[in-house]
Amino acid sequence: MIVSIIGLGLIGGSVALKLKKSGFADQVIGVDLNDEHADMAKKMGLVDDCLVLPQALSIADLVILAIPVDSIRKLLPSVLDRIDERTTVIDLGSTKSGICEAVLGHPNRKNFVAAHPIAGTENSGPEAAFDSLFDGKTGIICDADESQQASFLLAKACLEALDMHVVEMGSKSHDLHIAYVSHLSHISSFVLGQTVLEIEKDEATIFNMAGSGFESTVRLAKSSPQMWAPIFKQNQKHISASLGAYIENLQAFKNMIDSGEEDAMIDCMKNANDIRRVLDGINDKSNKKETLNQII
Amino acid sequence: MIVSIIGLGLIGGSVALKLKKSGFADQVIGVDLNDEHADMAKKMGLVDDCLVLPQALSIADLVILAIPVDSIRKLLPSVLDRIDERTTVIDLGSTKSGICEAVLGHPNRKNFVAAHPIAGTENSGPEAAFDSLFDGKTGIICDADESQQASFLLAKACLEALDMHVVEMGSKSHDLHIAYVSHLSHISSFVLGQTVLEIEKDEATIFNMAGSGFESTVRLAKSSPQMWAPIFKQNQKHISASLGAYIENLQAFKNMIDSGEEDAMIDCMKNANDIRRVLDGINDKSNKKETLNQII
Repeated sequence: MIVSIIGLGLIGGSVALKLKKSGFADQVIGVDLNDEHADMAKKMGLVDDCLVLPQALSIADLVILAIPVDSIRKLLPSVLDRIDERTTVIDLGSTKSGICEAVLGHPNRKNFVAAHPIAGTENSGPEAAFDSLFDGKTGIICDADESQQASFLLAKACLEALDMHVVEMGSKSHDLHIAYVSHLSHISSFVLGQTVLEIEKDEATIFNMAGSGFESTVRLAKSSPQMWAPIFKQNQKHISASLGAYIENLQAFKNMIDSGEEDAMIDCMKNANDIRRVLDGINDKSNKKETLNQII
Repeated sequence: MIVSIIGLGLIGGSVALKLKKSGFADQVIGVDLNDEHADMAKKMGLVDDCLVLPQALSIADLVILAIPVDSIRKLLPSVLDRIDERTTVIDLGSTKSGICEAVLGHPNRKNFVAAHPIAGTENSGPEAAFDSLFDGKTGIICDADESQQASFLLAKACLEALDMHVVEMGSKSHDLHIAYVSHLSHISSFVLGQTVLEIEKDEATIFNMAGSGFESTVRLAKSSPQMWAPIFKQNQKHISASLGAYIENLQAFKNMIDSGEEDAMIDCMKNANDIRRVLDGINDKSNKKETLNQII
């Protein structure tokens, strides 16, 4: 099978490596508007060759869009215009409903499968790619009813070749829930990094006094702004609500600190401690139910 | 040397293990008001024996307080009342100026050394202890001028036996800066955990959709409320200021999202990205300057 991957960053590059290594792809073609990234990807052996978009689309059995979500929304309709009926197109964006809306009613909508691999790191670009990025992680497929069976099955097989376990859900549900468990934590981390850097003008102090706790909490502040700004824009409604709730809770906690309400603080933290039980679940994905759409 | 450790949780237990393993202590005596913790610590071999406080104080060359900061503040004066002049007392609390104030002018103030090891995990209790917890981390000694030379040198040797590199600073500076690089990130994480758990009543959703990014950001929400509430109370002024700045920045970010100001978001995130350079420094502690008091 020939797989064309549009966008050769952390996600696209890692997909390329794994699909080749697993034998899922016989040939991996890369497309990247950034010539340096394309050259780097070829040099690193992430892809067999780099082509321009029309060529890459014309020869592919499977096209994978691994570019920022605003670019997916813009490019996807014209990609579907240009493919033949045997070709399947998957996107890997972190928002789903806006992308699905962009191709609603498109004659080739059935060839498209909306996906979101719950995997990533704070690093970006082809140099950040590695073949085990998706191992054991969740791959979400949204609005599967809109895809033809052959395309759905190919997309599912692709995610499984990446070593992911697949769950299905609606694109609107996806965007609502992902705002809380992914998008919000990126904002909390970006703004924590910003706040500490603003106040601590003397970096040596941060450098000397910060420990592994700070490092863990602020890790996502290293993420790519170009990738995240379009996500925040596309999932505006849900992110704004989740961020609003977060700010309200922080303000309430600040009030407890200001008035010295130690018992109230302890209650709050005890409730938050319950995340341990949930996170222990996350660490044992093998126990997960296969179908999330039964739940939400 | 006989070392008595008051408080056999993550910190006290890990100190006990390492001081014995490194040969710094010939005998480690434990004290814990919680009988289960004391029994567990003895059973796990963290300490050679457990004694009641007066006995533990009477035979120790070095007394280490590894209990919550409010308990340190209460207990420290009476500990200093009861030791003889050859005994040194160290505390390992995460706030320093309130503790130093509590023994200002005490006849045995010179026997006391205020310390803060920048190390920890989100786990607590003797079972969480491990001997490499402090390896390569920073050990801060505050207001060293208030300690007699023999006590200062013994405390420094103790932190070095824990494999820490020692920096010195004033207790007031410590509390100001630690509010940003440690205390604030605990609050951001506690409240993130609280917010997600409040909204996502169905835990299966968090369980299925959360990835390593969320896990990293919310890790500290698993920390001990009993340990952290007194810290937030003792460092109220600085934590309130840092949390206020964080909330303001989050609100500004929310405004950008609400009004779709993508360029402003990108600028903000680019600034936050600079934390990468600082964190890379944290990962290379060996390059650190030895004296932080030259800087702040």
